[in-house]
This record gives sequence, structure tokens and C-alpha cells, in this order.
Amino acid sequence: MRVAVVGASGAVGQEFLQVLEQRRFPITELRLFGSERSAGKSASFAGRNINISKLSADAFKGIDFAFFSAGKTVSREYCPLAAKAGAVAIDNSSAFRMDPEVPLAVPEINGDQIARHQGIISVPNCTAIILCMAIWPLHRASRIARVVVSTYQAVSGAGARALTELHDQTVEVIRGRPAAPQILPHPIAFNLFSHNTAIGPDGYNEEETKVIQETRRIMSEPKLALTATCIRVPIPRAHSESINLTFEGSLSESAAREALAKAPGVQLVDDRVGNKFPMPADASGGDDVLVGRIRTDASQPAGKGLDLFACGDQLRKGAALNGVQIAEFLMKARK
Amino acid sequence: MRVAVVGASGAVGQEFLQVLEQRRFPITELRLFGSERSAGKSASFAGRNINISKLSADAFKGIDFAFFSAGKTVSREYCPLAAKAGAVAIDNSSAFRMDPEVPLAVPEINGDQIARHQGIISVPNCTAIILCMAIWPLHRASRIARVVVSTYQAVSGAGARALTELHDQTVEVIRGRPAAPQILPHPIAFNLFSHNTAIGPDGYNEEETKVIQETRRIMSEPKLALTATCIRVPIPRAHSESINLTFEGSLSESAAREALAKAPGVQLVDDRVGNKFPMPADASGGDDVLVGRIRTDASQPAGKGLDLFACGDQLRKGAALNGVQIAEFLMKARK
Repeated sequence: MRVAVVGASGAVGQEFLQVLEQRRFPITELRLFGSERSAGKSASFAGRNINISKLSADAFKGIDFAFFSAGKTVSREYCPLAAKAGAVAIDNSSAFRMDPEVPLAVPEINGDQIARHQGIISVPNCTAIILCMAIWPLHRASRIARVVVSTYQAVSGAGARALTELHDQTVEVIRGRPAAPQILPHPIAFNLFSHNTAIGPDGYNEEETKVIQETRRIMSEPKLALTATCIRVPIPRAHSESINLTFEGSLSESAAREALAKAPGVQLVDDRVGNKFPMPADASGGDDVLVGRIRTDASQPAGKGLDLFACGDQLRKGAALNGVQIAEFLMKARK
Repeated sequence: MRVAVVGASGAVGQEFLQVLEQRRFPITELRLFGSERSAGKSASFAGRNINISKLSADAFKGIDFAFFSAGKTVSREYCPLAAKAGAVAIDNSSAFRMDPEVPLAVPEINGDQIARHQGIISVPNCTAIILCMAIWPLHRASRIARVVVSTYQAVSGAGARALTELHDQTVEVIRGRPAAPQILPHPIAFNLFSHNTAIGPDGYNEEETKVIQETRRIMSEPKLALTATCIRVPIPRAHSESINLTFEGSLSESAAREALAKAPGVQLVDDRVGNKFPMPADASGGDDVLVGRIRTDASQPAGKGLDLFACGDQLRKGAALNGVQIAEFLMKARK
């Protein structure tokens, strides 16, 4: 396969390269593209240094898969060009996520959508992917009527420079100096705040709106009742989510555990005696979404609701891994 | 007033001394007590060093107010002795919180309970106090039917040594060394985890059970439907809470804002344009509980639900300040 990675020096771009290498994706040619700032630099892949070129209209000639993670402005312009050149554009930006012509794909959940693509496939928002991975097996076991989710989102979700800011600011604060935010709007060292996206007229920020809309699309439940509160926490990597569910009927704790234990891409971490549950430190760098703290919600009639807690690496399953899995799904379908 | 502070060298004990000093509590005598480990040390109050003595049965002779924050074993033994000696024991432990004879007091909410004391008054759990401060004004405006709360709890809630662990572990991780947990059960530097209390047979941990039971008692709503997920985050000080409410009737965003804006002890921080909402860094060291992100819950029929986010200093309003306010309330009532 001839592969292009657009946004190769970004946090997700770097992760695309790692995941492609780790999964031994069958690459015969690899082209890397970046912004003017990154062009001329190089990135390492399988022990080789590969130059990063400036993106151009003819970049995708002969390419099979083009992985995009360079923001929605780049995607809006270049994904259609990639598709026109015969490549499948797998886009990690929000550019086409709500486009009914473009599949919004999580292979474990709506793989059937992937084959219907017309050259572009969207990777959903990271928080939405992790949420869907945790609740889809439960939804299949017993229909979910309502979701209330509060998030604990890692800083690398805001990009590589935000991650550096967390590190540098933490060092400053430990040295007794004030935190001086530059990338994120508020101090992030030893602090947390409402997600750094604009607030809409309904009071939800853009991240929350994505979680709500994309979860509905991924699960093909356009009317699913869902509310989200998205919070940025001083964690380098892996998002966590506190999830409260209401079922149309009911679902027991044990049935929920059973459904999650056999769900692909999910790892049950639910040790009440050892007080061991999903943590971002354990989810970081891994492929699985960790799910635990499963318990019957005491605020609802017995069995009608569940509480749970999930962690997933938002750069892997929340972005690059999910993108590569989409390509793998397509390759398998072609065979 | 002759005042005793039991547990004077602990995180909350130190805060009791600060709050008493800052509020110019009318002290004519101050006795400090601590464990064997602390006895012989001293603590500073209003520029003086005061010796910390070992607690004994006759410690409370002549004392008006005894503030306890030395754990429930000490409280169980010594609060009744303090009461017997004629003092009012204001207890920050969980020893008597569910005792129907002992008021569980937040002066802004259930001050009427305070006067009924029989020598012991309990300060509620910090997370419950902050939750109640945020939702009580709304409950008064329109009756709350159900609460779903997810917390972001600061490390100092686990004591002064846990706070040191957060600092030291963060330094180690920044130096590239592994986090070695000693006080808390899991690494806390750049990580978060389910609250470090035992899990009951219903799947809720002790902190969550306290939040559920104490919120009902504080608000005199023994049947209030409530579920909580309590999470420890790498924040030194001030707890945050993501709160989802369902009303029996309805409450608009603007009515909610109005109710919170005039509530004593609450500060509305709800700037959508400036993306400025409650943050632990802003709540730390302050007296008010900050409340914001107020918006109509899109997952419920219009007006039936609200989402909000609150932060409060759990050592101040969540503990020491609330305790001193109880004493102030009693002094005022006596006049």
C-alpha cells in the first residue's frame, strides 16, 4: 500500500506513524506532508528518516490511503483532492464528520458504514470514540435511553505544544514561579478547566456538541438523549469519562460486565477488592478502552441505570489507531 | 471564647487555625491537641507559636468550642467528652454525621438545625458541602428530583502527606523516574483514579456513599435520587464537581443564574464569551463555592434539567471554614 500522512509532525501524525509501524501496515511507499513550518523537517518511520514535504494538489497521485490530521481547513481542501486522485482519505479532523455522504467510522461499531465511502472516511472525535467503545456493547445488550457524561480530558488532545506547556508549566510551578499560559487559555499545571473550545448559544462548548452529535451518528441513534460536560485536566495522555446511563428497559451489573468482557477493543478493569479501575496511566499507549466502576445507579429504579468509568488513549483509539483500523477494515473487505 | 483545636498539625487543623485568625474569631484561650506524633511540636497562630499537647480526657475543661479534625476514632472517643465538659464539639470527621441526634450543618442551608445540638455538631463531607452549596439555591427555586455528580477531587482531601506525595512524585516523573505511590494507592502525578476509599457491596465507594447520604440529610430530602462518581485528580487543592440536575418541574438557565447570584457563599463564574468558568486554581484559598457552566440539559425535555460545574476549597468551605461558621452562627444566636 502506498500511504500518505498529512500533518506528520503533529501529535496525531506522529501517532499515525507509530501505529502503522507497530501494526506492520503493508507499506510500499510512505509520503509525509506538513505545514510550511514542518516542511523540510523529517520524521522517523521503521528506523528510517523520511522527509516532510509541503502539501500540494498533486501530492496524492498513486496513493492508496491518505491519513489526515492537519486540522479541518487542510482537510476541507485536500481530502477531496486525495479522493479524486483515487486514494481513500481517512480524516481525523471534524471537516466531514457530520456530512451524511461521509462515513463516521469506528470499525468495532459501525464497520458496515465504511464500505459505503466515496473516497473520504471520517475518524470521529476522540472523546466520542472512547464513549461509544464503552457504551456500544451495553446498548446492544439493552437499549440506552439517555447518557450523561463528564470528561477528564488529557492535554495532548490540544496538540503537541499543549503537552509541552503542561510539562514546562509544571516545572515552573514546582519552582515556585507562576503558571504562564500560552497555548491553553488558562493555567493547566495543577489545575483543570472547562474545555478550551468556544461556547455555543445553547451553552455547550464545541467539544461537547461533537460528543453529542457524533455519538448519535456512530451509534445510528439520531435521537439518543445525551448531555456532556467536557473538562481539561493536567494529564498528558488518555481521556477519562464518567458515564451515567439510563436504559429503556434495564441491564444488570453482571450482564453489563459480560457484554463488555467480550467486546473487541474493550478491556474490563473492575476490581472492587483491589480498588483497581481504569486510569489514564494504564490506558496511555494501549489500544484498548478500559472500562470499570460498573455499578447499578442508586438514583434510578433498580436495573434501569448504570454508572461506569472509562479511559482510552485519545491519540490511539481516539484518533490514529482508529484511522489505521479503518484502512485495515477496507483492505480485509477487498480480499 | 476558649477554643480547642484537635488534630492541629493536620491539613484541616492547620486550616482551622488560619480561618480562626483570618476571621478574627474572638479567642481568649487557644489549646492545640494532636496525636503522639505531633505532641511536643508547635503550630503558629496570630504570630505566636502554640504548643501541641497530647489529647487527654480533661482537655476540654472550660472550653467553649472544640474543633475536631483528627479522624473518626479520636472524634468518637473525645467529642462526647468535650460535650460533657460543656464545650460544643464541632467535628469534621464522619463519626456522627449520620447520627439523628447530631446536626449535620451547613449554616447557609440548614442553620435551623444548629441550635438543636446536644454538644456535638458535625461538619459534612467536603464534597457533599460543595455540592449542596451549588444546588441548594436551585432546589429552593425549583424542587430537584435527581442529581448525577462526577467529581474531580484534590489531593489535599487525603491529608497533608498525600499533598507532599503529589509534589514529590511530580518532581520524580519530570526527572524521568517512575512514580512510587506510598500514601495514595496509585500514582497521582499526571494521573487520576477512582477515589481511594473501600467499595461497598453496592459498588459505590465510601466517599460516594457519604455524598449521597449526607446531601440528603443536609437538604432534608431523605429520598432525593442521587448518584455520584468520585475521582481523585492531580490537583493540590479545591474540589470540582460536574453536576447534572433533573427538576420535578422545571428551571430556566436565567432563573438558575439569578438564584445562584444572590446565594450567600456562592460566586457565579459563568462567562461564556471569555470561556471563564470555575477552576480549582481560582477556588483555592477562597471562601466561596464557584458555580458556572450553567446550561439547559439538552438530554431532557426543555427546562427539566440543568448542567453545571462547581469548584470549592475543600479545606475551607468543605471543612474548616464551615466549622468556624457553625461556631459563629451559635455565637450570633446566643446574643
